[in-house]
Amino acid sequence: MTALTPYLRLRARFSRIAALEEASSILHWDSSVVMPPKAAPARGEQMAALATAAHAILTDPATAVDLDAAEADAARLGAEDRANLALMRRKHRRATALSADLVEAMARATSACEAAWREARKASDFPAVAPLLAEVVRLVREQAAALSAATGLARYDSLLDGYQPGLTDSRLVALFGPLQAMLADVLPAALARQQAQPPPIPLPGPFPVEAQRALCRSVAERAGLDFSAARLDESTHPFCGGTPTDIRITTRYDESDPTQAILGVLHECGHALYEANLPKAFARNPLGEAAGMAVHESQSLIVEMQAARSDAFLSWLGPRMHAAFGGDPSPYAPENLARLWRRVRPGLIRVEADEVTYPAHIVLRWRLERALVLGDLAVTELPSAWNDGMRDLLGLAVPDDRRGCLQDIHWYDGAFGYFPSYTLGAMAAAQLFQAASADRPEITVALGQGSFAPLVAWLAERVHAHGAAHGLDGLLERATGRSLDPAAFERHLRARYLGE
Amino acid sequence: MTALTPYLRLRARFSRIAALEEASSILHWDSSVVMPPKAAPARGEQMAALATAAHAILTDPATAVDLDAAEADAARLGAEDRANLALMRRKHRRATALSADLVEAMARATSACEAAWREARKASDFPAVAPLLAEVVRLVREQAAALSAATGLARYDSLLDGYQPGLTDSRLVALFGPLQAMLADVLPAALARQQAQPPPIPLPGPFPVEAQRALCRSVAERAGLDFSAARLDESTHPFCGGTPTDIRITTRYDESDPTQAILGVLHECGHALYEANLPKAFARNPLGEAAGMAVHESQSLIVEMQAARSDAFLSWLGPRMHAAFGGDPSPYAPENLARLWRRVRPGLIRVEADEVTYPAHIVLRWRLERALVLGDLAVTELPSAWNDGMRDLLGLAVPDDRRGCLQDIHWYDGAFGYFPSYTLGAMAAAQLFQAASADRPEITVALGQGSFAPLVAWLAERVHAHGAAHGLDGLLERATGRSLDPAAFERHLRARYLGE
Repeated sequence: MTALTPYLRLRARFSRIAALEEASSILHWDSSVVMPPKAAPARGEQMAALATAAHAILTDPATAVDLDAAEADAARLGAEDRANLALMRRKHRRATALSADLVEAMARATSACEAAWREARKASDFPAVAPLLAEVVRLVREQAAALSAATGLARYDSLLDGYQPGLTDSRLVALFGPLQAMLADVLPAALARQQAQPPPIPLPGPFPVEAQRALCRSVAERAGLDFSAARLDESTHPFCGGTPTDIRITTRYDESDPTQAILGVLHECGHALYEANLPKAFARNPLGEAAGMAVHESQSLIVEMQAARSDAFLSWLGPRMHAAFGGDPSPYAPENLARLWRRVRPGLIRVEADEVTYPAHIVLRWRLERALVLGDLAVTELPSAWNDGMRDLLGLAVPDDRRGCLQDIHWYDGAFGYFPSYTLGAMAAAQLFQAASADRPEITVALGQGSFAPLVAWLAERVHAHGAAHGLDGLLERATGRSLDPAAFERHLRARYLGE
Repeated sequence: MTALTPYLRLRARFSRIAALEEASSILHWDSSVVMPPKAAPARGEQMAALATAAHAILTDPATAVDLDAAEADAARLGAEDRANLALMRRKHRRATALSADLVEAMARATSACEAAWREARKASDFPAVAPLLAEVVRLVREQAAALSAATGLARYDSLLDGYQPGLTDSRLVALFGPLQAMLADVLPAALARQQAQPPPIPLPGPFPVEAQRALCRSVAERAGLDFSAARLDESTHPFCGGTPTDIRITTRYDESDPTQAILGVLHECGHALYEANLPKAFARNPLGEAAGMAVHESQSLIVEMQAARSDAFLSWLGPRMHAAFGGDPSPYAPENLARLWRRVRPGLIRVEADEVTYPAHIVLRWRLERALVLGDLAVTELPSAWNDGMRDLLGLAVPDDRRGCLQDIHWYDGAFGYFPSYTLGAMAAAQLFQAASADRPEITVALGQGSFAPLVAWLAERVHAHGAAHGLDGLLERATGRSLDPAAFERHLRARYLGE
């Protein structure tokens, strides 16, 4: 490699790191979909070896030397390569901020805690997992302190930045305060309006898995998924993994209700199309990656929440569902599907929440995780703080920790600073969909014909093609003319739920 | 890792290498069984990154320092750890013998040659691939020279040693000369005896894939495969891959004949059981690996050729095949299955050969590859040398190169020195099966009841549990009381094909 410039050596090195991460992603799919059960311990060793190998390339002293040399000579690079180089530096800074001991301790602690959480959740036994969670929180605090020292960011910000680059807590305060006020207004009005309408007719069943599978596959193709570079399989926890030319979507089929499968597949298709359309010229380099988790979530939600639950698409989908499942056609009438799939109902479980109450679940987690990271909340106080929050935010009493602070894997797996991405993604999705629909009236027309092509083409050009070049705000400014603007989300909720 | 001894650091390092190789093995399964077609180029990058990462750990200067230190202190290790350390040195010596440039040139040349071979074979166009094969052969000669310098072995021996440690060409000369003489005697006698018997009734068809799949699965379970640590899938080229707790066997189903699927699955089960029973205490270290490719092949052939085609097992299998496929029971009579599955017929294609003529295919390849490696044969002369050899050895005229020197992938993929393993494996399988059957009469009884358990228990104790501690001869001496002894193979052929 002696003939290469430092920057080209870095490109080769980051390509190797990305290729190892791709291997991990395929092995993760394998673990979830096809792996025989006794292979789990060996798979853990394989995943750890892959992570260690990737980390070793990033933290190799030669990488630091080449980064310095490439930056000194950055004026000779084009704008995209300079942006790519800056993102390399960012990854290197975050990776080298953490000692090998801390990384290893974190891996061990989260692995033990996550395993205990699975049992604790089943038994609704928070005290059983609390000491392990306390150890994870202790290490997360250390991690935040180390990242803060290396990046100059505040501690909780340094964690947020890991999931959505540039995101800060002060921005969340500015967004989530007005959001809560708006929802306090919209939620009761939406419930009252819903009450005044006829209740939706439930979908009759059963829905044979084979018929659901065929429908989901055809809907995914409609959404733009290319099955010569993708698979659709089944797993307990649906996800979108794989690589841009080897997308691996999973779902699960419930014979009594096809809703989760159909809308879940569309959600994962949103993630998949983003990955598939990332800039090829920077494949396996930082600029060719997604722009962050909030942006990623905006792409799944624009497909699932904005496009797929639109009147236009439901008018196409309803008859296809009836053709697939037969029986009485009236539950498949678009207006009925709309009432069914846009039902607002405050509940205890985040992943079952409608889009009006979903933000309350996120605000609760944001408040609590910030307090945990900053040392303002002890792990032992988490259940009562959670239950108080649910009462405040949604007026609900939490009957047990299984339906309370044990419901989500994130914290038990060491992911602090991730939750806000869900709601930022929902807000960005509304903003992008409104801009796209105004820009290209044919988007709505096409959805009425079951085609996502014009929407996806617009997203590919305005969002996907930029890779990680811009943060959430920069991307939205370029795509819609404004940075993240909560007014779009409010307009969306008022239009869909209040008919305004 | 500062608190560890050099030897324990080496153990950890070889574990990481093995875990990366396990990841490659699962990705190879994925490529063959489930991967969408457009993912192939990215998969190539992933496999290369894994190989590079494993090679980097092995050739890291710290590994050499620890090897020297551990060897200086080896007296403090137990016998098994000393054997493990010696195998680590062996791997290190072979890996560091080749320059990074040569390894890369070899990877590039074999990848190009193998791709061209696929097309050339279809078109039976040897000249189309000859220049690429010439480049591979040129690099293999360089490789052999470098390995020879590092190991002190002769050039062709240094390649043989890569597949079956300790194997030399002089040993092959001593074995294959008498083998040819014996076969020149046995083959015409077997053909004459076969001629005097009634011809076998062909199996009627069609054989629905679903029924074949169920039968193969139950036969694999009978052979001892644990499906909570294994899978059975389909691929164009059947193989056994994966890891000891995550065995991945594949086969292919032909609706007109279930022979290949049933016997192929049993063959792969032989490989699988060896991997599954390797010593756990040295999992992911060199001592915990298989003892070489000839030994590996002996384990697949003892199941497929010795046990599964025995009168005892066929008397169990025949009625089960009839139950699975229905129709006229007479083709499934054990005597008919025996005539069908032990039919001797000289042919052009190695993978279709019976066990009497198979060694001739290997002798031909052994002669030619040795001459290619030593520079005694030019690539351009290969087709005529091949065709002359087929006439000498089996009296057959080769009508085209597709059925001649283009039939096997090995050389085009850079594998020189591998072919002899097949016939050494067949000889070792006969020797092991005779020793096991004499030692444990219940082995034959159990095969008559469809159970491989006593045979597998004997192999697990006498062969599998030793890992890579002994070479082919050392292992056979311990298991059977003698090193590789061609008399056992001759006894087997004379008993089965001449009724002696």
